[in-house]
Amino acid sequence: MQRAGALAERTRPLGDHCPIDRTIQLIGNRTTVLLLREAFYGATRFDELVRRVGVTEAVASQRLRELVSAGVLAKQPYREPGQRTRYEYVLTDAGHALAPLVVALAQWGTEHTAGGGPRINHAGCGEPVAVVARCAAGHDVPEEELLVTGSGLARSAE
Amino acid sequence: MQRAGALAERTRPLGDHCPIDRTIQLIGNRTTVLLLREAFYGATRFDELVRRVGVTEAVASQRLRELVSAGVLAKQPYREPGQRTRYEYVLTDAGHALAPLVVALAQWGTEHTAGGGPRINHAGCGEPVAVVARCAAGHDVPEEELLVTGSGLARSAE
Repeated sequence: MQRAGALAERTRPLGDHCPIDRTIQLIGNRTTVLLLREAFYGATRFDELVRRVGVTEAVASQRLRELVSAGVLAKQPYREPGQRTRYEYVLTDAGHALAPLVVALAQWGTEHTAGGGPRINHAGCGEPVAVVARCAAGHDVPEEELLVTGSGLARSAE
Repeated sequence: MQRAGALAERTRPLGDHCPIDRTIQLIGNRTTVLLLREAFYGATRFDELVRRVGVTEAVASQRLRELVSAGVLAKQPYREPGQRTRYEYVLTDAGHALAPLVVALAQWGTEHTAGGGPRINHAGCGEPVAVVARCAAGHDVPEEELLVTGSGLARSAE
């Protein structure tokens, strides 16, 4: 990666000026990521999420609350006949926007850790899927051609 | 996402059968991700990494040791005239392969959390860069067309 602008000069921590840091503060937790995985796999109900992720209800509750608060999941009431109202958790638009990140986690783990992984294919044509950085002109962008330009960093980050 | 194969049936935790889980166990930690960010931004020396990430030397040491052990960073000796041998940390091929993941973290944080972020452009043509899921036939793959097929899940994961 190449740096430009204020980002090229700075030598101190960036803190909340950095969107990488803000994202990891929201989802950089194993249980959180596994809950997201299950949400992408179609689980919505609390009991189902708890069972599939394999954590305690207390931990799942806490992490789901954080995801709702971050706008990644929406908590919606549902009611089955003769039962009290319960809640399910569905991905918001911001949640769905995490899909490339989740696929990138799967792809890297499959390729660079022992244990394999599922195949990920395009349901439309059957071809394997990879997550790539691409520019608006349609070029695949290798890491060394990524130009990261910071601007407006507050003094605290300089 | 659509699921197929063994993955479609299972209701229990996947544990280490899941590459998402294995990846997050290696890098799902704020300090680890910030160290990777600085490695991508070109920092290699311990003092520089500590200063830019803003953590204690003890914490940085621990996380760097994990990244070396995971094969993401390589620890290499260097020596300046009149000084003792020191070490620097450089991204391995597996480390460089984390670039789309790091860009995806930045992109999501810029678009879905308050505080903005740097511009990321293709140094070659200047156009903005996005991380996308794409199939080998060249199609952009929206989340609903991702087909995830599990196979060979051990009994413990079923």
